[in-house]
Amino acid sequence: MRTTAIALGAAALALALPAAAQNEADAPPSPGEIVAAAPASEWIAIAPEDLLVMTLAPDAEGDPREVVIQLMPPPFSQGWVENIRTLARAQWYDGIAVTRVQDNYVVQWGDPNGEDEAKAKPLPNGLSSTSETEYLSERRRSETTWLKTATESYAPHHGFFAGWPIAWNADNAWPVHCYGMVGVGRSYSPDTGSGAELYTVIGHAPRHLDRNIALVGRVVEGIEHLSSLPRGTGPLGFYEDPAQNVPIVSIRVASDLPESERPRFEYLSTEGETFARYADARANRRDPFFIVPAGGADICNIPVPVRRVGDE
Amino acid sequence: MRTTAIALGAAALALALPAAAQNEADAPPSPGEIVAAAPASEWIAIAPEDLLVMTLAPDAEGDPREVVIQLMPPPFSQGWVENIRTLARAQWYDGIAVTRVQDNYVVQWGDPNGEDEAKAKPLPNGLSSTSETEYLSERRRSETTWLKTATESYAPHHGFFAGWPIAWNADNAWPVHCYGMVGVGRSYSPDTGSGAELYTVIGHAPRHLDRNIALVGRVVEGIEHLSSLPRGTGPLGFYEDPAQNVPIVSIRVASDLPESERPRFEYLSTEGETFARYADARANRRDPFFIVPAGGADICNIPVPVRRVGDE
Repeated sequence: MRTTAIALGAAALALALPAAAQNEADAPPSPGEIVAAAPASEWIAIAPEDLLVMTLAPDAEGDPREVVIQLMPPPFSQGWVENIRTLARAQWYDGIAVTRVQDNYVVQWGDPNGEDEAKAKPLPNGLSSTSETEYLSERRRSETTWLKTATESYAPHHGFFAGWPIAWNADNAWPVHCYGMVGVGRSYSPDTGSGAELYTVIGHAPRHLDRNIALVGRVVEGIEHLSSLPRGTGPLGFYEDPAQNVPIVSIRVASDLPESERPRFEYLSTEGETFARYADARANRRDPFFIVPAGGADICNIPVPVRRVGDE
Repeated sequence: MRTTAIALGAAALALALPAAAQNEADAPPSPGEIVAAAPASEWIAIAPEDLLVMTLAPDAEGDPREVVIQLMPPPFSQGWVENIRTLARAQWYDGIAVTRVQDNYVVQWGDPNGEDEAKAKPLPNGLSSTSETEYLSERRRSETTWLKTATESYAPHHGFFAGWPIAWNADNAWPVHCYGMVGVGRSYSPDTGSGAELYTVIGHAPRHLDRNIALVGRVVEGIEHLSSLPRGTGPLGFYEDPAQNVPIVSIRVASDLPESERPRFEYLSTEGETFARYADARANRRDPFFIVPAGGADICNIPVPVRRVGDE
């Protein structure tokens, strides 16, 4: 494991080197260049059952707004993930709305009348209730990639599992709240939420929510349609006037779409050689703009590369 | 110092407690409630010389858009900070624009023709060029509040100095790139930028920029006018069509405004008893929504409270 002391030594050295030594032609590659050079074998297709296509109402210029979400794999959060597929297949999400946009925190969507029992949209049959113990999963160390950087504030260990950022201790592992992660709104404990109310992170990672709320996926395309929405001016960033809500036309599981309409995505294996080099380059930027490599990175500053393929 | 092991032990205990024990009436206060109860003596007025008022062109509905920035105090970045005051007093910023909005990264503003020598706006006299060694300041341990949480990935220590988030090692201290921090755009080293091109962070803290670029302040009001702008679709999030640029009407130092028009702000002392309790509550949320306190927080998840006062 790279220690902070060694990394800072390297940083001091970089600072002492003449800047003229940084020649773009023979400069170390940037994290993006490393990913671009990954062999096809390190890209893993995301199953259509694990992709949600969320269509918002067109924007003020009439342009379409589509957001694609990847759902988490086992062993994480599967009770909620299955509920989300059930809700999407019942077309329950059609006609709900984005009702909350809190700066540097979350965008949330759900039934605008959900708080009013008389007007709330009835949930479909087939949903299960999941215990808050399922915020955690049994630790499986052999299946995680240890992050080769210094420690962090929220857990003794953090790394990646099958393409997802997770943290763990001696007993358990859990997914973490990075930018773009999608979670399940809930009321006070022991309620854990059904999956009818969802949110995504649009600011600095609110890691204090880890282990307190279910994470079920992440936005892999179109987050700008959510992160650039006007901020709500009510408490917690809720829109004060229902006219400000952003209608959701539909949310579909990609495998339920005609094959020609299914978006296709791949993620970079977090167990491969390229990801290890990419994570190291994120922690120690040596490409020409940088003069001092950080000597570390927090896990949310190493986003797992995801790309759209094959439909242009 | 609170160790991770102890904190996780406490977390496991919280998970085992019956949720019914969480009664809102006698619940521990939230971080916001702790700050709201701070005595007036712990709030420190921000000098009008340290506040910039940036007025953007009105939005599509004709509503005004004002952003207030607090400049950093000595010993940090004073060469650039003084340049920024000089540029504001020469009214050089008037008529420049926001030209870059990169999701989960930065919003940047400057001269839209700055790259074209023939059309670039001439800089005023009186600007100084500051060396990149000034990204660092001499360490003054006695003047910093140590953050009582676990370690982090980017530096051996981190804490607060006179209301600002900083990191330090045995020799130096430096400000860190949290959400809303304002920095100075630059070209390749040894260029360090003049202060004519500025940016603010609108995503997860890009801490790899620490010590690589000058931080000069932070947005204390109106960041939503920047963070909710449409994302640029060109490389690095630059707007591809100049018509997308968001014009800046003016940037003024508050002390140059008539006294009746000066905004007034205060920050919560980071050396006071309230801030210590607030930071602890951010690291260990015990208010009713939470079931597992994190046992730590990274410094960018402990934003220093700032409030507007006295002008309503």
